[in-house]
Amino acid sequence: MAHIVDLDVLDIRFPTSRELDGSDAMNPDPDYSAAYVVLRTDDGPDGYGLAFTIGRGNDVQAAAIRSLAPHVVGRPVPETAADLGALYFELVGDSQLRWLGPEKGVAHMALGAVVNAAWDLAARRAGVPLWRFLSALTPEEIVGLVDFRYLSDALTPEEALELLRAAEPGRAERAAHLEREGYPAYTTTPGWLGYSDEKLAALSRQAVADGFDMIKLKVGGDLDDDVRRMKLAREVVGDDVRIAVDANQRWDVDTAIGWMRELAPFRPYWIEEPTSPDDVLGHEAIATALDPIRVATGEHVQNRVIFKQLLKADAIDVLQLDACRVGGVNENLAILLLAHKFGVPVCPHAGGVGLCELVRHLSLFDYVAVSGSMDGRVIEWVDHLHEHFTDPAVVRDGRYLAPTEPGFSARLKDETLAAYRFPDGPVWTEAS
Amino acid sequence: MAHIVDLDVLDIRFPTSRELDGSDAMNPDPDYSAAYVVLRTDDGPDGYGLAFTIGRGNDVQAAAIRSLAPHVVGRPVPETAADLGALYFELVGDSQLRWLGPEKGVAHMALGAVVNAAWDLAARRAGVPLWRFLSALTPEEIVGLVDFRYLSDALTPEEALELLRAAEPGRAERAAHLEREGYPAYTTTPGWLGYSDEKLAALSRQAVADGFDMIKLKVGGDLDDDVRRMKLAREVVGDDVRIAVDANQRWDVDTAIGWMRELAPFRPYWIEEPTSPDDVLGHEAIATALDPIRVATGEHVQNRVIFKQLLKADAIDVLQLDACRVGGVNENLAILLLAHKFGVPVCPHAGGVGLCELVRHLSLFDYVAVSGSMDGRVIEWVDHLHEHFTDPAVVRDGRYLAPTEPGFSARLKDETLAAYRFPDGPVWTEAS
Repeated sequence: MAHIVDLDVLDIRFPTSRELDGSDAMNPDPDYSAAYVVLRTDDGPDGYGLAFTIGRGNDVQAAAIRSLAPHVVGRPVPETAADLGALYFELVGDSQLRWLGPEKGVAHMALGAVVNAAWDLAARRAGVPLWRFLSALTPEEIVGLVDFRYLSDALTPEEALELLRAAEPGRAERAAHLEREGYPAYTTTPGWLGYSDEKLAALSRQAVADGFDMIKLKVGGDLDDDVRRMKLAREVVGDDVRIAVDANQRWDVDTAIGWMRELAPFRPYWIEEPTSPDDVLGHEAIATALDPIRVATGEHVQNRVIFKQLLKADAIDVLQLDACRVGGVNENLAILLLAHKFGVPVCPHAGGVGLCELVRHLSLFDYVAVSGSMDGRVIEWVDHLHEHFTDPAVVRDGRYLAPTEPGFSARLKDETLAAYRFPDGPVWTEAS
Repeated sequence: MAHIVDLDVLDIRFPTSRELDGSDAMNPDPDYSAAYVVLRTDDGPDGYGLAFTIGRGNDVQAAAIRSLAPHVVGRPVPETAADLGALYFELVGDSQLRWLGPEKGVAHMALGAVVNAAWDLAARRAGVPLWRFLSALTPEEIVGLVDFRYLSDALTPEEALELLRAAEPGRAERAAHLEREGYPAYTTTPGWLGYSDEKLAALSRQAVADGFDMIKLKVGGDLDDDVRRMKLAREVVGDDVRIAVDANQRWDVDTAIGWMRELAPFRPYWIEEPTSPDDVLGHEAIATALDPIRVATGEHVQNRVIFKQLLKADAIDVLQLDACRVGGVNENLAILLLAHKFGVPVCPHAGGVGLCELVRHLSLFDYVAVSGSMDGRVIEWVDHLHEHFTDPAVVRDGRYLAPTEPGFSARLKDETLAAYRFPDGPVWTEAS
């Protein structure tokens, strides 16, 4: 029997702040980074996972991942849903580590990185991409992977089982459809705050030419700038392309409402992260005031308990799960089930380092085995850093292609690990 | 001018799990720990702070504190409110570190430890205990210390200023009153889950003899046990002593309601942490169902945004701030102001390592300069580990004495640092 014999962690950072890629109202100079984990085995493939950060603190994130090694090293390589459930419940059940959250922030992202690496390992070993691995599980197996603690006032295991059983017919057809047609994407590439109007217009035009029917602009820095940029983008892309806007938590509740009313004439499709990701009641107030503009959030939502409340309070119209913020695949299964129960489409957050690579698996699985629908669903696409991955996300004609390589796609190339290791890789030693 | 020349961090752990002190329904075997920080100066006293954890992960917490050194080392020693505001806003404004939260979990507790150490340093330098240092600030200075981001739908700077000005008359009298009479305490010492019925009864009897008019029991492990223990405690202490119960987040919403109805005949004063600290709507449902039993939470509430919602939703009747969970003194000023605005008494969480030492300063300041009231207010008291502090909390006849030593009281004795350092102190190398 194969075992996990080591847990390696690397601090990998890309100097993205030099180009202002990724600049927004709250994050003016991110260096997109990964606290990267490898589960080494004594037989067969290794497993890969990561936590995404934006620079400083990536070392702390790496230390948090390393602290989980005793739960993993020496364990048989996970192969079944039961194995993957046992690992997750052991990690969330560590009462001493739980104190550091509970289930939030650095400690929780560390747990998510390890859980995701274990899923990657299991899917690699099975020789299938993660979305296929997940799509082959029975409803009972999927329910057994979810921690229903704190969810029973919104979703019980029995309800979850019913939802999953109702989606069983047609699984094979939907999987085949994904392999033929892919899954809808939208692009954030044109809209970073650090870009000039000329660059914004050119990239927006290019996005439409590339087949996207939805783009996203960063807002929240300066109202006059936002009105001008939104007007420009609308003129460039025309009436039929959706334009979402994203404030990256910049506003208080009343500011969000007032600011968005100024942008409303240009028909924003959704307002993303209008305020603190912790503020359920704030999102509820914003959603009520701005209806019919959709309210979206999720990339910084810490766990299923906050998502449960956002859904129960009717505070969001779009749920943006993140592959690396919460407790890995297991907690994202809970979040997909909650979203389906409340009828809210999941449009994952992506970009960063590896998020496009990872989230596509979750959306594809959602289509096959949970919601069974693509209506109103779209995965974010940001076209940078993909070249560093061994199984990069590919978008063609505005759609993600279904991945075919075994695993969860988080593996970075060896030459990337050597070049971008912080602080001693040549990208850092030679430039600073 | 004196400067901060170094930031030292130590991983200090006490083997409390060996005696089941501190055992509750979620935390069966805690080793109470401190990620302990010293701000070294080149002239005059150093500053001391800590983050409290319960064992594993204390090294991660220490790494997070260490990562903040660049914001602190080389800085002039803070002396004024403006200096302390500038440090806090620089730390919460680090956009790369913010990604690790925002403002929650390991990264936020690290920030809190450093901020608290800076306050300790300023108060030591001024030669006064922290509560006196705070109580000498003007309303304008206090408002300048608070981050109102995400609060304006509940509390504006102008409203905060009004509240503080209204409490200015009588400050000196209330401070003198505290020095004469102290501040009310309750004790959790009798109620740990790991204790036998005999020990529970004996310690409850002792608590009343020691002058306490309120005790607290841990619940949530087993309903029959809880009914028996609650009945026993009520018999021992009589009708006039308040008995609070604490479930340490063990329950879902419906379980909390059902379980507490079984304990209701024994008149629990409050139910603490009935469910996830993230679940604002859950607390609201529980508070509505269990009225008039009070609902309390706070030791795991991550920041002012969650407290704001708990208050706005009328979801808690008692606010239990924690000195080390949030962004230090500055964020606790925001929380005290919010609680006062909404008319909810603050009854701080204490125990752990150093929490009794620290929180007393905040409650005393609240009495002097914010709420001006002791009605329904009481500070938790757990009688262990105080002997390790140079300025230990002292409770006499059921009341905390007002501290008189300069600073914020987080300093551990040198011999404690040597003995309990993990993993190489003799307490750990000789016992395991």
